[in-house]
Formats: sequence, C-alpha cells, structure tokens
Amino acid sequence: MTDADAERHRLKMAKRKAVQDAEVASKTISEKGLLIVNTGPGKGKSTAAFGLVVRALGHGWKVGVVQFGKGGWESGERRVLEGFPGVSWHTLGEGFTWETQDRARDVAAAESAWAKAMALMEDPAIRLLVLDELNIALRYEHLPLLDVVETLKTRRSDLTVVVTGRNAKAKLIEAADCVTEMTAVKHHFAAGVKAQAGIEF
Amino acid sequence: MTDADAERHRLKMAKRKAVQDAEVASKTISEKGLLIVNTGPGKGKSTAAFGLVVRALGHGWKVGVVQFGKGGWESGERRVLEGFPGVSWHTLGEGFTWETQDRARDVAAAESAWAKAMALMEDPAIRLLVLDELNIALRYEHLPLLDVVETLKTRRSDLTVVVTGRNAKAKLIEAADCVTEMTAVKHHFAAGVKAQAGIEF
Repeated sequence: MTDADAERHRLKMAKRKAVQDAEVASKTISEKGLLIVNTGPGKGKSTAAFGLVVRALGHGWKVGVVQFGKGGWESGERRVLEGFPGVSWHTLGEGFTWETQDRARDVAAAESAWAKAMALMEDPAIRLLVLDELNIALRYEHLPLLDVVETLKTRRSDLTVVVTGRNAKAKLIEAADCVTEMTAVKHHFAAGVKAQAGIEF
Repeated sequence: MTDADAERHRLKMAKRKAVQDAEVASKTISEKGLLIVNTGPGKGKSTAAFGLVVRALGHGWKVGVVQFGKGGWESGERRVLEGFPGVSWHTLGEGFTWETQDRARDVAAAESAWAKAMALMEDPAIRLLVLDELNIALRYEHLPLLDVVETLKTRRSDLTVVVTGRNAKAKLIEAADCVTEMTAVKHHFAAGVKAQAGIEF
C-alpha cells in the first residue's frame, strides 16, 4: 500500500467515524431494561440468551433463568451456570409436549414455571431474566397470552427479559424492544447430523 | 378439559412423537465437528457463540476464543470466560476499522489474530474454537479469503469452529455446516436506546 493509499484510507475512515459518532450521539436513552425476543427456526435462540447471561454476570448483575420446555435435559449450560453465584436457575418445563403426551401435565408445568418467573421479576436484585422456550408454552396455549404479555410490559423498568423459542406470538413481538429472527440459511440436521452434546445441549 | 379431549391430545402427541423419533433415527452422523457461521444484522451473533462456549464447557470441552474486532472492549463475557479453566481467550483485534483509521495496522492485527487461530486449531485438546468477528476481517480483505476458508475446511474432523460477524462471505457460507442469519425484526438502537453494559458488551 502506498502512502497515498494509506492516506485515502485514513480520510475515508475518519469520515466513517464521524458518521458513527453522530449516530451514537443521536441515541438519547442511556439505560433501559429491554424486552428481547429470540425466535425463528435457526440455531442460536437459547445460546444467545445464555451468552447474554455470561455478559451480564461479567458486569456483576444477578440473573434469573426459567426453562419452560426442557425438563429432562441435563444441558451443558445448566451444569456451568447453575452453580454460579448470582444465577438463580429453574428448569421447570416437563420437556417437549409430544414426550409427556399429557396436556394437563404440560399446563401445570408451564404454570409453575411462570409463577417462578413472576417471583423473579419481583426480586429487585435481578437485572436479567431469561424465559427459555416460553414461546413454546404460549404457542400451545399452556399459558394465557394476554396476561403474560401484560406482565412483561409492566415489569420494573430496569429489568431486561429475554424470551426464546420458535413461533413467537405477534402480541409479544409488538411489546418487545428487540426481536431477532434466527433464520436457518443452512442446518446440519438437514445433512443428517444428529444432535450432539456440546453443540445442541 | 374432558377425558375425551385429554385422550385426543394423547393420541395426537403419540403420533407426533413417532414422527419425531423417525426423524431423529434418520440422522446417521452421530459425531462431527461443525463449521458454524452466525451472521446477519440482528442481535445474537457473538452471544450465541459465547452461549455455545458455556455449553461446551459444561461437557468438559476445552475451548479457544479469538476476537478479531474488539480490541479496546472490556466486555462482560471476557471478564467471566477468560478466567475459566479450559478457556484460551485472545482478544487480538484492534477494534473497529474506523477507530484505528490505519489499514496497515488493521491488517497486522487481523494477521496476528489469524495466526493465533491457526495455532489453536493445531491443539488437539481444543474441541470448540470461536472466531469472533472474523467475518469483518474477511469483508475488509484484511485476510486472504480463500486461504482462510481452505484452512477451516481442512481442520481436524472433531473440531467445531464458530465464525461470527455481519456480511459473511459466500465462500465461507458454502463451506459451512450450519449458517444462521440473525435478522433484526426490531432493534432497540433504532428506537434511540444506546449500547448498554450487560446487554451489548
């Protein structure tokens, strides 16, 4: 790279930085608990929530996790995070609804998980709450959608809540601050690869 | 719910479970290191990678992390994961290219991060390697794309690599086993909320 090229690059990047700085300065809300929804058929909905747990712990936050849909699973993330000081972990789902084959049991499990979620929302020490696979419980109407959304909307203003699971309901998306659709451009399951420890659980 | 309803539900779910079991049985590859790419403009690319780090640690895996683009950032995830036994953490990027305004310095930083990535790929103890924001270094041609993709393709078969960052190159997507596009359905930045500790870093 010649000196002229280097200088051209410097000028271009200086302009880019000015644009970037103006954009950052245009944002006026500096601290706000968010309602975050991770949905879609792609990989990364729950792992992104657990990545956020790690991030929050690194800033000294206390974190709550309620799992609505993974009762039977002894996952790697649970093993690591459950024992962390500052994490209140609750795996209360009974597993996939086609495993239990008992709707009354599914509803009871979802209700007990939601009761725990509401208790954690009341705990002022908690700054981040992950409601893992809550979307599944809402989709199968194991919980009353409007009540759940209203409770999430009227939570304390400094509490960030992350809801995961496919097929997020429109009412929840409407109430959320940040919604990410994890789109599967390519998935190894389609190529015949099984779910693996360390990758899928 | 009447008994008849409950029985109808049970039968429907029993059928669903049979379909599910057949699908699981149809997968023939039980253990395989994957090349995973998290891209797109939405939130969750890096956090999903760090969630996978936690999952892998829970199964006793050793993990490598190389950060290509976040030199100046003292992130929450770094604070927590860097000290973990089993994690080899390397933040070698110099930060955003519009911050350095010096292309030669950006290229040197990317090259040193890539050298570290290659060294970690050679370490047989490591089962998961996160190359955080490698896509940015590839996009700005700080590294030779074809060499990088070839090295990733010919890695050990038991090593899973996760590449993050917007604008993943087509050649990388072609080589990958699992590609997720994080699509921003809604983003709080657009509503004027600043990047916050615990949420964005």
